[in-house]
Amino acid sequence: MATLTNLHDALLDEVQDLYHAEKQLVKALPTMAKAASSDELRDAIQRHLGETRHQVTRLDQVFDLLGETPRAKHCAGMAGILQEGTEVLENGVNDALLDACIIAAAQRAEHYEIAAYGTAAAWARQLGLDEVAQLLKDTLDEEAAADATLTSIAQAGVNEAAEVASEQRA
Amino acid sequence: MATLTNLHDALLDEVQDLYHAEKQLVKALPTMAKAASSDELRDAIQRHLGETRHQVTRLDQVFDLLGETPRAKHCAGMAGILQEGTEVLENGVNDALLDACIIAAAQRAEHYEIAAYGTAAAWARQLGLDEVAQLLKDTLDEEAAADATLTSIAQAGVNEAAEVASEQRA
Repeated sequence: MATLTNLHDALLDEVQDLYHAEKQLVKALPTMAKAASSDELRDAIQRHLGETRHQVTRLDQVFDLLGETPRAKHCAGMAGILQEGTEVLENGVNDALLDACIIAAAQRAEHYEIAAYGTAAAWARQLGLDEVAQLLKDTLDEEAAADATLTSIAQAGVNEAAEVASEQRA
Repeated sequence: MATLTNLHDALLDEVQDLYHAEKQLVKALPTMAKAASSDELRDAIQRHLGETRHQVTRLDQVFDLLGETPRAKHCAGMAGILQEGTEVLENGVNDALLDACIIAAAQRAEHYEIAAYGTAAAWARQLGLDEVAQLLKDTLDEEAAADATLTSIAQAGVNEAAEVASEQRA
């Protein structure tokens, strides 16, 4: 990475990191949705894929407000998280257990974004870039809601189904 | 990774992932603390280093309760997050801005753990492993508190100092 000399550069660096994080998710979420056997989980992932695509366009607006051309910087954090997630998908886990593992992977991705958007929004506010801060906050709220939805789906039956399927195979 | 056949195996896999995540943090936090210029931030990171070491021993207890030998599995998520964090440390960023960047990196690490401990605790509860679930929940609560402390420190002056230092250098 280039040496950061001021908070504006650091904010731009965060936004470039998030741009790559979101683009990786746009590629990964359809695979997760396809692998899900719970209708509720599949629907939730597909809805969040739509949100994620919109979050990319929101970042395009942020780049524009910062007077910069949209550019992604390799996001090693999201790359590592998705590498862990795809390992599970490739290992032929039974359907009910796979749903629980998909939720585990997706919640790691959501939490990466909650941390990163939280930082970026705080820095934008500090810099008096209110419109940028609001765009980042809008996405932050969506990520937190997506995380809460995944927790609800896990608690409403997916974890129990994963346990029952495990017992039947024991 | 080995194919997971039941929720107990999936829980063990999560705990092995977290074991490696915590061990990576035990190595990374002293570097972050040393690089911090805010006394409050340095103290918070050093306190959390003590907590992190205790969290490793808590995972040892979890392995014991699961009847397994403690073993780490490569945690690509935390590895990616810490790779991003160390890039900033190695790039000679000015002190006040560096503090803001250290908080950004540390909060990504905390959020990875919040997601992973949240999953592991929920699966342990589902399996009726109440003692394991409580140990994981104790650490989850500490990670959430550490994240909140970092937000407070950022808001109480670090972000403002990063902006002021940026203006002075502009």
